[in-house]
Amino acid sequence: MQLIKAVQQEHRVLALWEDGIAEEFPTIWLLHACTCERCGLSIKGVRQQRLTDYPPRPVIKGISVHGDTLHITWEDEHKSAYPGKWLRGHRLSESGRFERRPIPYVWGADLKLPDFVSYEVVANDLFANLQMLESIRDRGFALLCDIPTELSMTEEIPAIIGKRRETNYGIYELKAKAEPEITGDMAVELTPHTDEMYRIDPPGITLFHVVVQSPIGGESSLVDGLRLAERLGQENPDALRTLCKIPARFHRELDEGRHFDIQAPIFRQDANGIITGIRLNDRCMAPVDATPTDTERFYDALRPLLDIIYAKDETIQFKIDAGQMLIFNNHRLLHGRSSFDSASSRHVRIVHVDLDEFHSRLRVSLREAGREDEWMHLGPGATA
Amino acid sequence: MQLIKAVQQEHRVLALWEDGIAEEFPTIWLLHACTCERCGLSIKGVRQQRLTDYPPRPVIKGISVHGDTLHITWEDEHKSAYPGKWLRGHRLSESGRFERRPIPYVWGADLKLPDFVSYEVVANDLFANLQMLESIRDRGFALLCDIPTELSMTEEIPAIIGKRRETNYGIYELKAKAEPEITGDMAVELTPHTDEMYRIDPPGITLFHVVVQSPIGGESSLVDGLRLAERLGQENPDALRTLCKIPARFHRELDEGRHFDIQAPIFRQDANGIITGIRLNDRCMAPVDATPTDTERFYDALRPLLDIIYAKDETIQFKIDAGQMLIFNNHRLLHGRSSFDSASSRHVRIVHVDLDEFHSRLRVSLREAGREDEWMHLGPGATA
Repeated sequence: MQLIKAVQQEHRVLALWEDGIAEEFPTIWLLHACTCERCGLSIKGVRQQRLTDYPPRPVIKGISVHGDTLHITWEDEHKSAYPGKWLRGHRLSESGRFERRPIPYVWGADLKLPDFVSYEVVANDLFANLQMLESIRDRGFALLCDIPTELSMTEEIPAIIGKRRETNYGIYELKAKAEPEITGDMAVELTPHTDEMYRIDPPGITLFHVVVQSPIGGESSLVDGLRLAERLGQENPDALRTLCKIPARFHRELDEGRHFDIQAPIFRQDANGIITGIRLNDRCMAPVDATPTDTERFYDALRPLLDIIYAKDETIQFKIDAGQMLIFNNHRLLHGRSSFDSASSRHVRIVHVDLDEFHSRLRVSLREAGREDEWMHLGPGATA
Repeated sequence: MQLIKAVQQEHRVLALWEDGIAEEFPTIWLLHACTCERCGLSIKGVRQQRLTDYPPRPVIKGISVHGDTLHITWEDEHKSAYPGKWLRGHRLSESGRFERRPIPYVWGADLKLPDFVSYEVVANDLFANLQMLESIRDRGFALLCDIPTELSMTEEIPAIIGKRRETNYGIYELKAKAEPEITGDMAVELTPHTDEMYRIDPPGITLFHVVVQSPIGGESSLVDGLRLAERLGQENPDALRTLCKIPARFHRELDEGRHFDIQAPIFRQDANGIITGIRLNDRCMAPVDATPTDTERFYDALRPLLDIIYAKDETIQFKIDAGQMLIFNNHRLLHGRSSFDSASSRHVRIVHVDLDEFHSRLRVSLREAGREDEWMHLGPGATA
């Protein structure tokens, strides 16, 4: 889409594209966006000019459009140039800004399970990789198969999603107890929940690498937190408002003497009131910290939400075999698993990628693929 | 303080302490707080009873206080016991909840620099350690001296603050370029800023371990972000409101192909409107993503804040020598440094502790010291 014209209107510039889109850009914004040698490159952390070096309402001396580039000469002869494509990706009108919001695909129990995608394909093909990243962004999860049998693959695979989050325990090894007291003893079912919801910034993109599966049970379940919000909002809008506003309290004491205790709403909303994430584990909830009236309101609101989860109305269930992997956004989806044979040597290796590292990879891939949505506004999920 | 009496009032319990404090606790809250064998221990992630197993307004059959413990027998003969000290630490009235908020000591340029504390002392003495943790909580920083010369101390020291955050690059080694082109070439001054403000959850507690200092320059500077908010609020309340509301945008492209781009307000407020943190680096700011009117409002509000920072009115400056360490909360304080001789082999090693790991350590230490404020409500700083 070609930028065709730009005119000065007091302390703003009105830019016009060939499809009729017209956008206003304040002159102070344009100066702050200038990447000339004198101003510097903020994206590289190098910026010679300070905001206070510019006047609050910079004055333009000359303005023109040549070859899809906006050229401005400022009052002091300083010259700036802005590619039309970049300006188009940074529209400031309500509608322009709205177009940069990702629209999640919100799903329920009737979701058709997406295909398992071969690891070799997503590791080597930019477009297949991008499709997987977009599936994680839009649906909240993706499924991989054909993972080579080496255990070290768990460490390697996150690289296709974003830089792996290092932890003090390395890789989390999820195994049934090695010597169950009764053969056939079932490892218990886990109700859908989010992981480490007692942390300020819970693990973001979570990768479950199944190394050994149990022949009986051990199915994974997933629930879309955005669907839960949607249903609660339809059936009990007051309850949804309450769970967006009155913080829940989650706590966890770990054996080595760590004690987490956090207060954060179950549903996180952005400044526009759009729900961006969920944190919930009914087994780790501490008694809420709210006035007596808000306390009763909170528990009354939590009840219908738990009813939906316990009824499994919105849950999908499927089995991940050895050599396969579930990759999901722990700030949006709840996950659980059915009981399984604890004598089965079931073994799952768990690693994480921070949400902003995932966003970084998605951003770079969109750019490499020449996509126009590379400037999409990706939010902070369920971070406290 | 002894719990002396408890009476049922409809679906709440009114508890009375010997100092006259009276507090209401809803019965549903009390049941959710029950840690009997049947209910389970949510703090250990083990909870057999679900909220939906309890009635919304549980009915009490018997209530009594014996030896500072509240005993309740529920309608179904289920019995619960609550230590008076625990109830006292979990008061739900506005005033009770207010007492759990830490009150920061907000400071300016006239701050008397706290003493450097010997590493051996804080590593071995619970109360000295707690005093240091409280200094980080209240002032936003602490200073250590007498650090043994082994480089590996950088890895060990975080353990006195909380579990160290592992990163893919290990320890960040801050050194002047090994072969400066001109001897005496000065490594430039850095204006006060917060680190990695382009991340959803920036590094929390940051430790600067000085291994080699420059004989000339290299002084550290600190600015209290809460003081900046206070001054801006006095001098330009509209500007403060704007910077709490309209998100700034920070971005950073790293050489290995990572590209962060985040939107978050410069000042973070909690649900009560209290400012809990700051994120700001004028060299990494991207052009803001807001409507044209909000864009102008944002830059107009940022200007007086930057003026205060650039004028150094609120800045303290001091030199950290080799074998000393600065520990500060990167969600509250801005830090900078004066220029220094880049031929000086100046070497600083940087490590981090997540804010919630620091809170965990503080919580456990307060409990070990028998302090009544172990249930203090510690918030998420400047997390997005």
